[in-house]
Amino acid sequence: MTAAEMQASPQGKAPAQAGALVISIDAMGGDLGPAATVGGIAKAAHANAELRFIVHGPREQLEPLIAQHGLGDRVDLRHAERVVTMEDKPAQVMRSGKDTSMWSAIESVRAHEADVAVSCGNTGALMAVSMIRLRKIPGVNRPAIASFWPSRGPAGWNVMLDMGADVKADAEDLLTYALMGTSYARNALGLETPRVGLLNVGTEEHKGRAELKEAHELIRNAEAAGGLKFVGFVEGNELAGDRADVIVTDGFTGNVALKTGEGTAKFVSALMKEALTSSLLAKLGALLAMGALKKLQAKVDPRRANGGVFLGLNGTVVKSHGSADATSFAAAIDLAARLAKSGFGAKLAARVASALPSGQDGATGADPAPENSESSQ
Amino acid sequence: MTAAEMQASPQGKAPAQAGALVISIDAMGGDLGPAATVGGIAKAAHANAELRFIVHGPREQLEPLIAQHGLGDRVDLRHAERVVTMEDKPAQVMRSGKDTSMWSAIESVRAHEADVAVSCGNTGALMAVSMIRLRKIPGVNRPAIASFWPSRGPAGWNVMLDMGADVKADAEDLLTYALMGTSYARNALGLETPRVGLLNVGTEEHKGRAELKEAHELIRNAEAAGGLKFVGFVEGNELAGDRADVIVTDGFTGNVALKTGEGTAKFVSALMKEALTSSLLAKLGALLAMGALKKLQAKVDPRRANGGVFLGLNGTVVKSHGSADATSFAAAIDLAARLAKSGFGAKLAARVASALPSGQDGATGADPAPENSESSQ
Repeated sequence: MTAAEMQASPQGKAPAQAGALVISIDAMGGDLGPAATVGGIAKAAHANAELRFIVHGPREQLEPLIAQHGLGDRVDLRHAERVVTMEDKPAQVMRSGKDTSMWSAIESVRAHEADVAVSCGNTGALMAVSMIRLRKIPGVNRPAIASFWPSRGPAGWNVMLDMGADVKADAEDLLTYALMGTSYARNALGLETPRVGLLNVGTEEHKGRAELKEAHELIRNAEAAGGLKFVGFVEGNELAGDRADVIVTDGFTGNVALKTGEGTAKFVSALMKEALTSSLLAKLGALLAMGALKKLQAKVDPRRANGGVFLGLNGTVVKSHGSADATSFAAAIDLAARLAKSGFGAKLAARVASALPSGQDGATGADPAPENSESSQ
Repeated sequence: MTAAEMQASPQGKAPAQAGALVISIDAMGGDLGPAATVGGIAKAAHANAELRFIVHGPREQLEPLIAQHGLGDRVDLRHAERVVTMEDKPAQVMRSGKDTSMWSAIESVRAHEADVAVSCGNTGALMAVSMIRLRKIPGVNRPAIASFWPSRGPAGWNVMLDMGADVKADAEDLLTYALMGTSYARNALGLETPRVGLLNVGTEEHKGRAELKEAHELIRNAEAAGGLKFVGFVEGNELAGDRADVIVTDGFTGNVALKTGEGTAKFVSALMKEALTSSLLAKLGALLAMGALKKLQAKVDPRRANGGVFLGLNGTVVKSHGSADATSFAAAIDLAARLAKSGFGAKLAARVASALPSGQDGATGADPAPENSESSQ
């Protein structure tokens, strides 16, 4: 298969040939520079022969790296002069970021050259550029960022959203998040009827903020059309639990929870490491248990779950962690490839259109992909 | 000393004698019943001869337990017929809860019979009863619940508030939380000039919700009068970190963060346990490292940090975890005793009065405890 593909792309270009999954890559803006992103492309390309890449960034930096990894026949390099830094303000990038690798990467999705874009750059800028270039799908007021969270659930991961696309969300936004999160869990985790929980400070129906009580009502009424099972309010301890597969909250709370969870896991692991090196006996014990501890480390390795996905736009964008190394960036590409292969974008749009109250009159103009094609994923 | 005290209380009553620290205890409403709370009293009484207790609950249940622990000379038992359950709604307890052990326990603080009250009952009801019986101190619009969080900080714990007294907080509430949290960290953790951070989704000044930007300004301006050092915005990963000793947020976010952190720590610990029993070699290793792991477990044992404190009322109330066992409840009593001994309530009121903008005209009527008496703790 690789040979046939090589033949089909004699100039080292990624063709939009039938069956190829084309991923648009912003190679710049990560903490570790293009060595990490191109390294990630090499890993992903090696693991999945179906993949083609359109890679965006300064030619003089990227060309040697692409050659070094022997990726010439899998990659279409697009020169982009400038790089969006972590300090750049979103509004500024929106105004004058046309010549950046980030903008260029999103542009390939807008032009339907690529199915999905992947970037490890500045989240705020990436969301801003994605919003103005890809536009929101009908029925979505606030797009969201969805992330995986290691859990006791059947897939080993829960989906949580919004992780910080917007600091606010009203009841209708929360309903949209529930629908989009369901579609995402179905396509990315293979769960037929995901269980959805609404994050709150208690599980009783009278608890919490007004918009949460309203959203509780809206999501319950959307169970059938959304293809989800609503389990009601859940608390912070259920993020890693087995009560819900999809946890819905506003972007402020989601972002704080994500970072609190990451911080806690890191803190506990560091204490554990200190304990296991605190005495000779402990060191010996740690040595014997090394194999099991390594397996555990791999299981909860945040690099394996790398990739927040922007939901609610005409096109899918995967945001990799800014500090992603090659392994981690390859995981984000793998996620992007799975979503591209399942035709996720069109399915999500159809699901939102069919389940939102405003979609019932057929006036939303969403992609008419049949619903059962989604549940078959 | 115990003999002298026994002489001073021949009828088994806790006297309001000079130098005695009197703690009012709601013995009911916890998941493990009065055996756990009276067991906790026994531990605390044994560790600290200064303590006297006023214990509230059904006489027929408590009398045998108090006798069994030989606490007759340290305890004044107050019969209260009814118990507030975890299912009772706060509004309902406020209307018709006068004959409950919870109400009675707060009443002892209001009547100045006890310095602090401790309860492991229903948080919402406890806050509601505390609010109507003790009333807010001048300058405080929303009281808050402050908790400890295991951390890399100098005291080994950070203080976080609000943990769920109110689901909302505006900029002035957040300033009040900063002042109250500072006073709490100084008196409970012995930090002279606590560092205060405001929880947000980024550390840049332009980030987050409008009330956070406003609170940023207010807290910065209150640095000198509040006796605090403001470190600006912090993110969720800093809850266990060493950048801030006091982390300020609204009660919704605080509650979600607390439960997310607890859930994550539990999840990681459970995975660790699974890993260390997954093979014969791992089990052997765990056996050798047992001493070090036990020490670690003790260090992060949530029972050691048991006790959320209600701040901003005329009187101090310590909320123990509902599932507290005797060890855990004793830790909550120990915290209450430390606060009582430092004269915390009056100091907090004075600090709020002197640092809030409205306090500058001296019209708040707060307790005139001199400020330097607070910093001497």
